Amino acid sequence: MAREVAIIGIGCTAFGEFWDRSFRDIIVEAGVAAIEDACVQGEEIDELFVGNMSAGRFVEQEHISSLIADYAGLASMHVPSTRVEAACASGGLALRMGALTIASGHADIVIVAGVEKMTDVSMQAATDMLAAAADREWEGFAGATFPGLYAMIARRHMHEYGTTSEQLASAAVKNHHNATMNPKAQYRNEITVDAVLRSAMIADPLHMLDCSPITDGAAAVVLAPLDIARKYTDTPVRIMATSQASDTITIHDRSDITTLAATTAASSRAYKMAGLTAKDIDFAEVHDCFTIAEICAIEDLGFFPKGTGGPVTEDGVTAIDGDLPVNPSGGLKACGHPVGATGIKQAVEVATQLRGDAGKRQVAGEVGLTHNVGGSGGTAVVHILSR
Amino acid sequence: MAREVAIIGIGCTAFGEFWDRSFRDIIVEAGVAAIEDACVQGEEIDELFVGNMSAGRFVEQEHISSLIADYAGLASMHVPSTRVEAACASGGLALRMGALTIASGHADIVIVAGVEKMTDVSMQAATDMLAAAADREWEGFAGATFPGLYAMIARRHMHEYGTTSEQLASAAVKNHHNATMNPKAQYRNEITVDAVLRSAMIADPLHMLDCSPITDGAAAVVLAPLDIARKYTDTPVRIMATSQASDTITIHDRSDITTLAATTAASSRAYKMAGLTAKDIDFAEVHDCFTIAEICAIEDLGFFPKGTGGPVTEDGVTAIDGDLPVNPSGGLKACGHPVGATGIKQAVEVATQLRGDAGKRQVAGEVGLTHNVGGSGGTAVVHILSR
Repeated sequence: MAREVAIIGIGCTAFGEFWDRSFRDIIVEAGVAAIEDACVQGEEIDELFVGNMSAGRFVEQEHISSLIADYAGLASMHVPSTRVEAACASGGLALRMGALTIASGHADIVIVAGVEKMTDVSMQAATDMLAAAADREWEGFAGATFPGLYAMIARRHMHEYGTTSEQLASAAVKNHHNATMNPKAQYRNEITVDAVLRSAMIADPLHMLDCSPITDGAAAVVLAPLDIARKYTDTPVRIMATSQASDTITIHDRSDITTLAATTAASSRAYKMAGLTAKDIDFAEVHDCFTIAEICAIEDLGFFPKGTGGPVTEDGVTAIDGDLPVNPSGGLKACGHPVGATGIKQAVEVATQLRGDAGKRQVAGEVGLTHNVGGSGGTAVVHILSR
Repeated sequence: MAREVAIIGIGCTAFGEFWDRSFRDIIVEAGVAAIEDACVQGEEIDELFVGNMSAGRFVEQEHISSLIADYAGLASMHVPSTRVEAACASGGLALRMGALTIASGHADIVIVAGVEKMTDVSMQAATDMLAAAADREWEGFAGATFPGLYAMIARRHMHEYGTTSEQLASAAVKNHHNATMNPKAQYRNEITVDAVLRSAMIADPLHMLDCSPITDGAAAVVLAPLDIARKYTDTPVRIMATSQASDTITIHDRSDITTLAATTAASSRAYKMAGLTAKDIDFAEVHDCFTIAEICAIEDLGFFPKGTGGPVTEDGVTAIDGDLPVNPSGGLKACGHPVGATGIKQAVEVATQLRGDAGKRQVAGEVGLTHNVGGSGGTAVVHILSR
């Protein structure tokens, strides 16, 4: 990267169902929190990026970049404001665009936010809106929803590697446990493997408790060039790598549906950019939209050999006190998954951990990774952050 | 800019109502044309950006970045692909993001495309979808559509400066004339001032022929660092400036609704970046979503003093053979306005002119400007291009 970039401020709303608050309320809350945390003044802000999947359908509002600049009080300074979208990877993309803009020399202080207000529509409507992240003509019209697509991935992973429903469930149990220590999480209750297996079958073999929820929430970070970051904070978090990759939007066009090749490509490039390998990662926030997605992710990111994600999860290797803590925030499953916000929330969590501010869920380590996926793997974004 | 950027290839579909062709058909046509024009190989492509306002609502498909990378044959190389959106300024934003990414040093060859497929829904539905570019809660729910918002701007401009309906109409007459010489234009017929004034009243004082149409279309450009551009083409087009600004999303929050402050801010920054003034611009493609928008644009860009846009247009100063040709392509009014594609089509037109390839509509000059607006001016993007 031509010019190195650091996170100097973070902000995040609670995640949940907020029927008494609007889209604009939650994004402004997260943004103001990040700006206050960074101690930057409004007139220092050069640029704004927002990750959002589908405000056009969830709240019938496009052009949210202008709306958010306006409500954040930045319109009078005519700050450039851009929305980026790649379904559930929108937040990760926004973070990358912010970092590239600073690297280009066109901006110094950049706010990057992510937001989704999903609970103002019915559950059926939300499921259809999320299905717009898959190929509408070749998957959606054939009846495939996201649980259906990931169920096929899970079934194949079971066939190839002997992965069990209990192993899948253990990812959800771990993430619920972590969320009990995260005051911002949507679900702060413990669950058991038995509870997962007895929950309603959504798309065989995925039960309700294998699935991430519908969530309202927003998150934001403030970025600055690394060389001036210490003017603003004693605890800058360095972006060692920012990487993004695409793949076929449909799963039927892939040679192996148990591997997300976009994850493999994005993480390989990220390790190279950072001069690291998967072994150097101390903890990670990965994209567990379904339990099987976490199993695939920890394999595709190179943390564990292909096919062993189930057993290592069941054995507690990725637990908060394990060798490689995964999703200390509670992940998408239990912290919640406001789709456009998730990629930014992952960065907020990793920065919180690296600052040593994570309280009861604090993990050790100096290098954390975020992994954000769009659709069934048509897009993947990986960031490596360090103290 | 840390690293200068050039356009090395261009492509554009015809603009019109294409009921026999899909969203994915038209974007691939434009992209392949640009790639072939640039003579780049697929494996050289480092990154893809797509400007699109509302595929989520027009064709119920989000995550189009992955879809397009896939259909363009770039998924197997896992090329990063990002959609950006700021309503009708989405194309301009995509071009800026492409240029910044090259400037950052993270990419060399970048494809930037814009696309909208608008005619698969009813006219009423399309009007509502476009209204999502305004503030849904404070403008849309109060009944304001885009013709309504621009009608208020027009009425105020008439009140302040004595602008007449005939002067507004003369912008449409000029743009239809230019479009007769553009084989890709949606409307290639001459019209008269009288025909505009006799066309149906949409939102007083704007008649049907004051309004840009609903259009399907796609456009693409290939970008490269300026220092290697001549490896690919003898006629690189240099991006001298890329600039973007925001403003309040609602018009009622502005001190003067006849000036788009985002346009003023974006163009001031662009002139500074290019080391030029408005007087140095030889011709321009401006955002004439309504005739009044062109009148405001040529004032706010600094081409003519505030309030004189009507008379200079009526007097032919902006005609194709005038002192400052505006919208040689036919503009949004007559070339058509597939909203996400418009900002890229403007760059394609300016590049075509600078290459000397514009045939009967060729204008003289070495410096051209593009001006792309989102909503009623919540976003504006300005690019200055030169031979």
